[in-house]
Amino acid sequence: MDKNALRSLSYGVYTVTAWDNGRPTGCTANSAMQITSSPATIAVSVNHDNYTNSVIKELGKFAICVIAEDSDAAVIGRFGFMSGRDTDKFDGIPYSVRGMMPVPDAACAYICCNVVDTMETATHTVFLGEVTDAGVTRQATPMTYAYYHNVIKGKTAKNAPTANF
Amino acid sequence: MDKNALRSLSYGVYTVTAWDNGRPTGCTANSAMQITSSPATIAVSVNHDNYTNSVIKELGKFAICVIAEDSDAAVIGRFGFMSGRDTDKFDGIPYSVRGMMPVPDAACAYICCNVVDTMETATHTVFLGEVTDAGVTRQATPMTYAYYHNVIKGKTAKNAPTANF
Repeated sequence: MDKNALRSLSYGVYTVTAWDNGRPTGCTANSAMQITSSPATIAVSVNHDNYTNSVIKELGKFAICVIAEDSDAAVIGRFGFMSGRDTDKFDGIPYSVRGMMPVPDAACAYICCNVVDTMETATHTVFLGEVTDAGVTRQATPMTYAYYHNVIKGKTAKNAPTANF
Repeated sequence: MDKNALRSLSYGVYTVTAWDNGRPTGCTANSAMQITSSPATIAVSVNHDNYTNSVIKELGKFAICVIAEDSDAAVIGRFGFMSGRDTDKFDGIPYSVRGMMPVPDAACAYICCNVVDTMETATHTVFLGEVTDAGVTRQATPMTYAYYHNVIKGKTAKNAPTANF
């Protein structure tokens, strides 16, 4: 098996956010995709070890915040390489509340979801969320994972499904 | 809700293939992502109305074939706008058998999977597959959905989850 083949799948770069007892938190993810259009649902994969996983399960909601090519890469790093368990990840990160969810200003779009189903795997939970609100906050080109990897030369976060964040 | 936000998620372009009683068939998809790295698993979303959906359920296997920017767009159209129920989609499409699955020559990589779980939604089945074989067949840039939409100006297939294939 040539695992390079797995790297040929295309992804975006997202901050997945939630409220942890009223405190905003989140993590960086690349594995998100729309599943149905009517009603609109989105699936996102979050590692069991990510604090955000348990926060989403407790809250029953999440937001996918779309990182753009011109977004500050520090947001990706902050949400990808630190844990919300012992860090206030949003400290110093400008954000607003959209659809009642925290959305970093660095994002160019957001999709708020209620969890309607989950699929557990060995290391990750796939959350299926029904979209409750969505919006484009500014005109920008969504960042692909390939752009992040090839242009920004981003590091790999240990809990990314693709093991190459 | 501004549905334009949903269009800011990033995707690739894939042919999802399977064997229908020994006959190769498949469909075009954009919603595929790696879920876990060890063991490697991939999730792909396939509309209930796609003949390939029932074929995968019967076979318990599928292959994700990665379409490249330089792939013949006719393959995308053929697998996206016709039904394998009444059409031999591989007729005239050069392909080889890799990891015991049919892989169009137009693809630049393939990932063969055994179905290990499914999640049903209103209109789509999310298949979770454990990777049994994978390979890169040629060096090429994987096509993103954005490239397909913006450069190739691809049409929309009615059963694509994002309603914009």
